[in-house]
Amino acid sequence: MSQLPTFSDIEKAHDRIRPFIHHTPVLTSKNINQIVGAELFFKCENLQKVGAFKFRGACNSVFALTPEEAENGVCTHSSGNHAAALALAARMRVIPAYIVMPENAPEIKKKAVAGYGAQITFCEPTLAARESTLKQVAEQTGATEIHPYNYFNVICGQGTAAKELIEEIGHLDVVMAPVGGGGLLSGTAISSKAMLPNVKVIAAEPAGADDAFRSFYSKSLVPSVAPKTIADGLLTSLGSLTFPIILNEVDDIVTVSEESIVAAMRMVWERMKIIIEPSSAVPLAAILESKVDVKSKKVGIILSGGNVDLGKLPF
Amino acid sequence: MSQLPTFSDIEKAHDRIRPFIHHTPVLTSKNINQIVGAELFFKCENLQKVGAFKFRGACNSVFALTPEEAENGVCTHSSGNHAAALALAARMRVIPAYIVMPENAPEIKKKAVAGYGAQITFCEPTLAARESTLKQVAEQTGATEIHPYNYFNVICGQGTAAKELIEEIGHLDVVMAPVGGGGLLSGTAISSKAMLPNVKVIAAEPAGADDAFRSFYSKSLVPSVAPKTIADGLLTSLGSLTFPIILNEVDDIVTVSEESIVAAMRMVWERMKIIIEPSSAVPLAAILESKVDVKSKKVGIILSGGNVDLGKLPF
Repeated sequence: MSQLPTFSDIEKAHDRIRPFIHHTPVLTSKNINQIVGAELFFKCENLQKVGAFKFRGACNSVFALTPEEAENGVCTHSSGNHAAALALAARMRVIPAYIVMPENAPEIKKKAVAGYGAQITFCEPTLAARESTLKQVAEQTGATEIHPYNYFNVICGQGTAAKELIEEIGHLDVVMAPVGGGGLLSGTAISSKAMLPNVKVIAAEPAGADDAFRSFYSKSLVPSVAPKTIADGLLTSLGSLTFPIILNEVDDIVTVSEESIVAAMRMVWERMKIIIEPSSAVPLAAILESKVDVKSKKVGIILSGGNVDLGKLPF
Repeated sequence: MSQLPTFSDIEKAHDRIRPFIHHTPVLTSKNINQIVGAELFFKCENLQKVGAFKFRGACNSVFALTPEEAENGVCTHSSGNHAAALALAARMRVIPAYIVMPENAPEIKKKAVAGYGAQITFCEPTLAARESTLKQVAEQTGATEIHPYNYFNVICGQGTAAKELIEEIGHLDVVMAPVGGGGLLSGTAISSKAMLPNVKVIAAEPAGADDAFRSFYSKSLVPSVAPKTIADGLLTSLGSLTFPIILNEVDDIVTVSEESIVAAMRMVWERMKIIIEPSSAVPLAAILESKVDVKSKKVGIILSGGNVDLGKLPF
């Protein structure tokens, strides 16, 4: 699995997951277009199953397993969208999912994962505890570990969102995605460059979690250390698969302030009437900060997810 | 204009407004379906231009005017979505819009209407003042008054939402809409009954503003007096056109509590990741209260709008 995915792998992934995923709508807003002086096309993965693009990669990974592999189920450690996505995908294939979660994970996330029928093992809230507990679980069960982003079939699944966007809209000058571990960005870049040879692929990242930005410009993988941002989907480091893809295929990575993220998030809620989580707002924040040249251009933006605690809104 | 609209009038309206409106998506939620034990299809007029179905009726009314009528523009009194909808439709036809608004209308609504290029006349915040000021404006300008719901072409425009829903989904057992003045409900009922002869059309209304419910069961128009509900789009009385249509075409009207409205609204925000205003949540609230028999049925629901003040959420 150390080879890198190509567009043809993404096409296969799309055929594989098509019966299970939502074909999410692409929405536009005249109002926001006027504000930014460009034509923006928002691919609404906040309306995807489990409320995030993560379902595409998890679904592709689960359904790509051989029957023998599938029998033993899948496992991962995650407290977020990937856990719910993997649990739902496993339930759809009627195989077990084993999820390692830190014991201090929010009740609502524990419930969501349990609600999809996954078996949860709790551990101490450290990366070391999560990894060693997962290793135990994998050994005991024989389940296949599905990493949230640094995994071939996850990257291929995530690339299907940009593929659908470009199939629907056609020509785009720029495609943007947020970057955390780089699974969404890698898949987005492979699809975009294959389908639109002249497109610019630009990632946006919170300044308070700018490890991808620094990795990209130093050309060496800088880990994410003590990141601090409201965009809680973007705290992770790039991986051994996602980093080379990003170096090869992505044209630029830009960083944005926390204030811009909240302003962009609020703008989408108010003007487009859809709920996006802070991570989803990061590319629009970059446009609002004029970090990306979009003047009179057609710009595709992947809205990554919509899982927000309504009791803790930043406005 | 005292004849009642037919489905053929709605078809003409649809042809007329198709270039100007959003063809809004129909969304579903497995999660909510499981909770209610039915298959729900949500027609997302919260994603319509100006954030509400009102744009359909306003647009149809503006574009149905003769060139001579159009020259003098359109006028209405409204502090809500109809004012913004009429202003935008008029701007699209490049004719004047004169809007009478109470001087205590929220700043954000005044700005929205002014932003669409309408000329605003402020008046005292009473119905008498609004009507007399509108009369003056109409006399001075020769503008055609477009009533927010008791107006032939408005009803025809509103009926295009249910038409699109049924064209996309096909068979439905039940179609639901909220009821305020009855423009949306009338149009919805005409389209639904024409396209699906066996469908049940059921309206939902806040118990704190139950004039339509009482009118329907007493078969005489009961005006809305001192209504009290968070569903601020549903405060108005039925009209001389909408009431007979509702008596003829609607199968039932049910009422719901404020608590259910807020719970249904929150359910849609959390599970579907879209922003709906309280009025939109009223049909789902009726289902959650088991006021409507939907067991194992296919149910279409018109989500009427998404204009909410994010600074004043009920949760």
